Amino acid sequence: MQTQIERARAGEITDEVAAVARAEGVPAEQLSSYVASGEAVIVRNRKHGEIAPLGIGRGLRVKVNANIGTSRDALDVAGEIEKARVSVESGADTIMDLSTGGDLAAIRAEIMRKAPLPLGTVPIYEAVARAMDTKSSFCEMSADDLFDVIERHLESGVDFLTLHCGVNLQALERMEREGRVMDVVSRGGALSIAWMRYNERDNPLFTGFDRLVDLAAGYDAVLSLGDGFRPGATADASDRSQLQELITLGELQARAIARGVQVMIEGPGHVPMDQVQANVLMEKRLCHGAPFYVLGPLVTDTAPGYDHISGAIGGALAAWAGADFLCYVTPAEHLRLPNADDVRQGVIASRIAAAAAELARGDERALLRERSMSQSRKSLDWEGMYQNAIDPKTARASRAQAPSGDDEVCSMCGEFCAIKVQKEIIKK
Amino acid sequence: MQTQIERARAGEITDEVAAVARAEGVPAEQLSSYVASGEAVIVRNRKHGEIAPLGIGRGLRVKVNANIGTSRDALDVAGEIEKARVSVESGADTIMDLSTGGDLAAIRAEIMRKAPLPLGTVPIYEAVARAMDTKSSFCEMSADDLFDVIERHLESGVDFLTLHCGVNLQALERMEREGRVMDVVSRGGALSIAWMRYNERDNPLFTGFDRLVDLAAGYDAVLSLGDGFRPGATADASDRSQLQELITLGELQARAIARGVQVMIEGPGHVPMDQVQANVLMEKRLCHGAPFYVLGPLVTDTAPGYDHISGAIGGALAAWAGADFLCYVTPAEHLRLPNADDVRQGVIASRIAAAAAELARGDERALLRERSMSQSRKSLDWEGMYQNAIDPKTARASRAQAPSGDDEVCSMCGEFCAIKVQKEIIKK
Repeated sequence: MQTQIERARAGEITDEVAAVARAEGVPAEQLSSYVASGEAVIVRNRKHGEIAPLGIGRGLRVKVNANIGTSRDALDVAGEIEKARVSVESGADTIMDLSTGGDLAAIRAEIMRKAPLPLGTVPIYEAVARAMDTKSSFCEMSADDLFDVIERHLESGVDFLTLHCGVNLQALERMEREGRVMDVVSRGGALSIAWMRYNERDNPLFTGFDRLVDLAAGYDAVLSLGDGFRPGATADASDRSQLQELITLGELQARAIARGVQVMIEGPGHVPMDQVQANVLMEKRLCHGAPFYVLGPLVTDTAPGYDHISGAIGGALAAWAGADFLCYVTPAEHLRLPNADDVRQGVIASRIAAAAAELARGDERALLRERSMSQSRKSLDWEGMYQNAIDPKTARASRAQAPSGDDEVCSMCGEFCAIKVQKEIIKK
Repeated sequence: MQTQIERARAGEITDEVAAVARAEGVPAEQLSSYVASGEAVIVRNRKHGEIAPLGIGRGLRVKVNANIGTSRDALDVAGEIEKARVSVESGADTIMDLSTGGDLAAIRAEIMRKAPLPLGTVPIYEAVARAMDTKSSFCEMSADDLFDVIERHLESGVDFLTLHCGVNLQALERMEREGRVMDVVSRGGALSIAWMRYNERDNPLFTGFDRLVDLAAGYDAVLSLGDGFRPGATADASDRSQLQELITLGELQARAIARGVQVMIEGPGHVPMDQVQANVLMEKRLCHGAPFYVLGPLVTDTAPGYDHISGAIGGALAAWAGADFLCYVTPAEHLRLPNADDVRQGVIASRIAAAAAELARGDERALLRERSMSQSRKSLDWEGMYQNAIDPKTARASRAQAPSGDDEVCSMCGEFCAIKVQKEIIKK
C-alpha cells in the first residue's frame, strides 16, 4: 500500500489531504504538494481508525501537543486519563503518552479510547522500562527489543513516534569535547547514550535507520526525529552537539522522505530569545523544510513554576519564525509530574503562543479572529468575547467572580470605562 | 533647587545616581550622562523620603510596574493594601495607584506607608472623580481643578505621574478620519477627549504643558507621558493617531528635558508580534532615547483570562528591542478588577519577560543568573534552584505538592531522570 507521500507524488489528492485542506481552509493541491516535498505531514497511522487526520507543516495552523503519562513514581492511570480529557477540552491538537510506569500498552490503549486525537509516543521508554523489569541493567536491552517495541506501538495505532536517531557517537564526542553546563536533558537521549557507552556501540536507531523507515512505511506513521542533544540550559543553546545532531537529522529525513515516509524534526529546549529565529531557520534549511516540532523553547531558565510562560514566549517566537508544532510546557516542568490543571495551563499557554504567531505571520484566519474579538469588546458584547476567547470557560468564570454594579462594564474601570465614556459622548 | 538632569549636566554625580549605579552594577559616570541626556530617569519625588531611588532606562535592568487601586464599584481599601504588599513581595519595582473610588488621598498615603517603592498615579482620575461628585458632569472640571490635583499628588510625594499630554485635537481628528476598531481604550485618553469635545477646547495638559513642567521641576518628579491613543486592538496597532501622538510626545519630551524635567514615554497596548520592535524603535527615535514604558503589549486579543501571558510575550519582545519598563497585565485584564493572586501572577509574568529580554540583550548579570540556575539543576541542588528562581515560594510549593519516591529527582521523570542516568554512567 502506498504512503501519503507516494500518493501525493503520483498526483493523487488523498481523502486525508482533502479532509485536512477542508478543515484548514487551504487549497488541497497546495497541501498535497507540501506532503510530497515533506514540508507538511498528515498525522494518522492507518491502524488508528477513529481520528480525523491532522496536518502539520507549511501553510497550516500552528499545532499544539500535550504530554501526559505515568512515571514509575506516580502511577495513577485514572489521573492520566483525566489529563487526556483536559487536553482535548483545552484544545490540544495531539497528545503524547510518555508513560514509563504500569502496564504501558494498556494505558496507551485507554488513552486512545478516551481521547480522539492523534497520539505520539517515545518507544524507548517502554523498551527501557521492560529491560529494567527483566534484566540486570536496562542497557542489556538488545536492538531487537527496541525495534520490537516500536513495531508494537505502530501496530497499536500510534500516529507519530519520537525516535532519537541522531544521538550518535559523532555528536556525543563533540559534546564531550566542547563541554556543557547541563549535558543531556532529553530522557530518550540520555538513555540512548547510556546504552551506547555500556555496549560500546553506536545507536541502533541511527545504524538501523532504514529498518525503522521500513517499519513506519507499513503504517504510514510519522517519524518524529528527536533531539537528544537539545540544550537543557540557555547557556548550552545552539552548540556543536545540537547542530551536529540537526545535520544528521537532515540527512536521515532525506532518506526517509525518499522512501515515502513522513518526518517531523524535534527542536529545543532552552534557547535565549535572540537565538530562536536562527534555530528555526537552520532546521528548515538543513532538514529541507520538514515540519519543526519544538519543546517550548524556554527563553529563561529562571522561571520554575511558570515554565509555561517562559515556553509561551519562546513558542510564539519560534512559530512566528516558521516552527509548525509546539509541544506544551506546563507550570510543573522541572519540579514534578503535572496535574490536570497544569495540563490545561500548558495547553492554553501554547495556544496563545500559536495565536500570536499566526497573527504575526499575517494569517487571514488569525486576522479575522482578532477583529471579531475586538468588535465584541467594542460593543461590550460579553458573550461574543467568550466565544472568541481561546479559553471561554476561564474568561466567563473570571468575570463572574467579581460582578460589576453595571452589567455593561467590568469592575476594573466601572464608570471610568473608556468604551462607555465614548459611547456616552456619541449619545450627546 | 536643581533637578537630577541639571545636576548631571553640571557634571555632578548625585547621591541618587550613585545609589542606583551601585544597585545596578553600572558605572556612575555613564548613568549620570544618560540622566543628562534624558535616556535614563531617576524616579524619586523629593518629598518621598523613605524609598531608595530607582533608575529606569538605558543600560539598566528592565523594570516592572504593578497597577493597583480601587474602582468606584469595588471599594475595598484593605484589599488594595494587600495587593501593594503582594506587589512588593513578588518583586515589582514600582506601584501605580489607579484608584478612582473612596478617599483617594488617604488611599494613596496608606499605600505609600505600606509599600516602600516608587509610586505612580494618573491625576486625571482623581480630578474626574471629584468633578463627578460635585458637578453636573465631570466635563465641568476646569483646567485649574486638574492642575490643582496634580500639585497635590506631587506634594504628597508621588514619584511619577501619567499625564495624557499628547491627546490633542490633531491626533483626535486623525483617528476620526481613519477610523478604528476599538477607538480609544485608555481611560485617561477617553476622559480627556470627552472633556475636549464638551468644552470645545484642546487638552489643557497639552496647551498648558509648560505649567506642568514647572510644577514637576519643583519636586524632581518624572513625567510619564501617557499614550491616550494606544491601540486597544491588534487591528489598530501603529495607526495614524498612535504615531501622531508619539510625534507630539517627542516634542513635549524635548521641552521638558530642556527645562531639566525627567520624562518617560508610555507605549502600547495591543500590538502584533511583528510590529513590536518597530514600535520601540520609533519611540526611541522620536523621543530622543527617553525610557519607554509599555503596557504589555498584548500580542493577541483572544486571550482574556490569560492576558498576563499575552503580555509577557509582548513585553519580552519589547524589552529585547529596548523598552525599559514593563507595566504588568494581570489574568483579570478585560474581565474584572484583579485580586491579590492576579497581581502576583501579573508581576511574575512581567519579570519573566524582563529576564528573557535581559538574556537576549546579552546582559552579563542575566547570563550569570541563568548559569547559576542551570548549575543548580545539573547538581540536583533543589535549594539552589529555589534561590535562583524568579518566584522561589511557588517553585518550592509546587515540588512539595508531589514528592518523588527519590529525594534527589522529581516525580516527572523519576528513575528516567536524564541527569541521574548520566550521573550513574559517570559512576561506572
